[in-house]
Amino acid sequence: MLSKNQVKLIQKLQQKKYRNELNLFIVEGKKSIVEFLQAGYRLELLIATEVFATALNGQPITLVSKEELRKVSSLKNPDEGLAIFHQRQHKGILQEGVILALDNVQDPGNLGTLIRLCDWFGIETLICNSQTVDCYNPKVVQATMGSLTRVAVHYVDLAGFLATCALPLYAMDLDGENLYTTEFPEDCVLILGNEANGISPEVRALADGIITIPRFGKLQQTESLNVAMAGAIVVSQVRKLDN
Amino acid sequence: MLSKNQVKLIQKLQQKKYRNELNLFIVEGKKSIVEFLQAGYRLELLIATEVFATALNGQPITLVSKEELRKVSSLKNPDEGLAIFHQRQHKGILQEGVILALDNVQDPGNLGTLIRLCDWFGIETLICNSQTVDCYNPKVVQATMGSLTRVAVHYVDLAGFLATCALPLYAMDLDGENLYTTEFPEDCVLILGNEANGISPEVRALADGIITIPRFGKLQQTESLNVAMAGAIVVSQVRKLDN
Repeated sequence: MLSKNQVKLIQKLQQKKYRNELNLFIVEGKKSIVEFLQAGYRLELLIATEVFATALNGQPITLVSKEELRKVSSLKNPDEGLAIFHQRQHKGILQEGVILALDNVQDPGNLGTLIRLCDWFGIETLICNSQTVDCYNPKVVQATMGSLTRVAVHYVDLAGFLATCALPLYAMDLDGENLYTTEFPEDCVLILGNEANGISPEVRALADGIITIPRFGKLQQTESLNVAMAGAIVVSQVRKLDN
Repeated sequence: MLSKNQVKLIQKLQQKKYRNELNLFIVEGKKSIVEFLQAGYRLELLIATEVFATALNGQPITLVSKEELRKVSSLKNPDEGLAIFHQRQHKGILQEGVILALDNVQDPGNLGTLIRLCDWFGIETLICNSQTVDCYNPKVVQATMGSLTRVAVHYVDLAGFLATCALPLYAMDLDGENLYTTEFPEDCVLILGNEANGISPEVRALADGIITIPRFGKLQQTESLNVAMAGAIVVSQVRKLDN
């Protein structure tokens, strides 16, 4: 049975303001909760239906009915549990290997998918400007399918960071060099911009190279690729050359 | 001012059953509506606010207030207009070039993004099994950003089609050959499966090759990439070799 205060806390954590203030975030669903537990994230609250609770021995659980879970869940089909964890503070940015940087990505689904992409391709560092959507937003956490436990997401003054970063910087934009004929060094930063407006001028000015995914076909009327798709294509290309 | 029947029609077209019965579909937003008009789609109904209406001379318009538009729109922020067009029936499947085939893709956002991907890479034919989400679903149309006008989407008995298709067939799955070391012919079919379950056994059995995007990194715990991301990576790789 949930207390009033627990319900209030869950509601508050839908908002970035309270997530930042309390340094907590919500994870929903059996599989994701288990991944965060296994990754050693500090638990604040774990609520589970009986089905899930029996699989979680040793954890302090607040047992709830399916109906109670439905009331606090933000999922259409709540998946047996909801947990609140402490946010992990990543120290210092490791400047090696391939780093992905996001300049104003707004859509939670896009950020979540990009975190999953990093995980797949072994990119351990994701840098976001402070206007990029919060990686602890419940929709982002949901979309990462547990990958958030394996990728360090840093929120920084992006232009400030890039200005002092020793690695070569490549920004994706519509008027650059052909991705497929560019040679990328093993260590570099790949920068993706906002869904509608692309890379901001101050970030673009810092880039060592502007890179474009060439359009094929007769008509060439498509305006742009989705930012997550563009990210997949560039990361795949760079990682592949890397091996 | 909208009639009761017009409002009813718009509501009905949210459902696949009525879209199929009436052969109509909804397009929202200034930019997308203009793209479908320019592509010669037959108009059934065009409703627009005064702002948009003045830009659309020569079209039969039902003028509405912002408030009226909001009532029938499925967007959070309706964009000055909503149109109903007749679905386009694509004849015969052109068996040349790169063809993308979808086996049970369920998420409207994924299908929309994949249609945009096809458009970007000049893939003119997209084959879907009959269980794949309807390309005239309003969320799909929205996600294609007009690309639906340039890609022919066919719904077929996929296994039946593939069994008689003369092109080599490559199915994306988790246990196949390395994408990056596979040589693809210029003309081929690339098959992507369901978000959770991958390629169905009957489709897999027909494939000439099973292809995998290798995972990088130490941990390799990611279970899978989003189907649209996987599509972006494979199409980019095949198109690139193609040029």
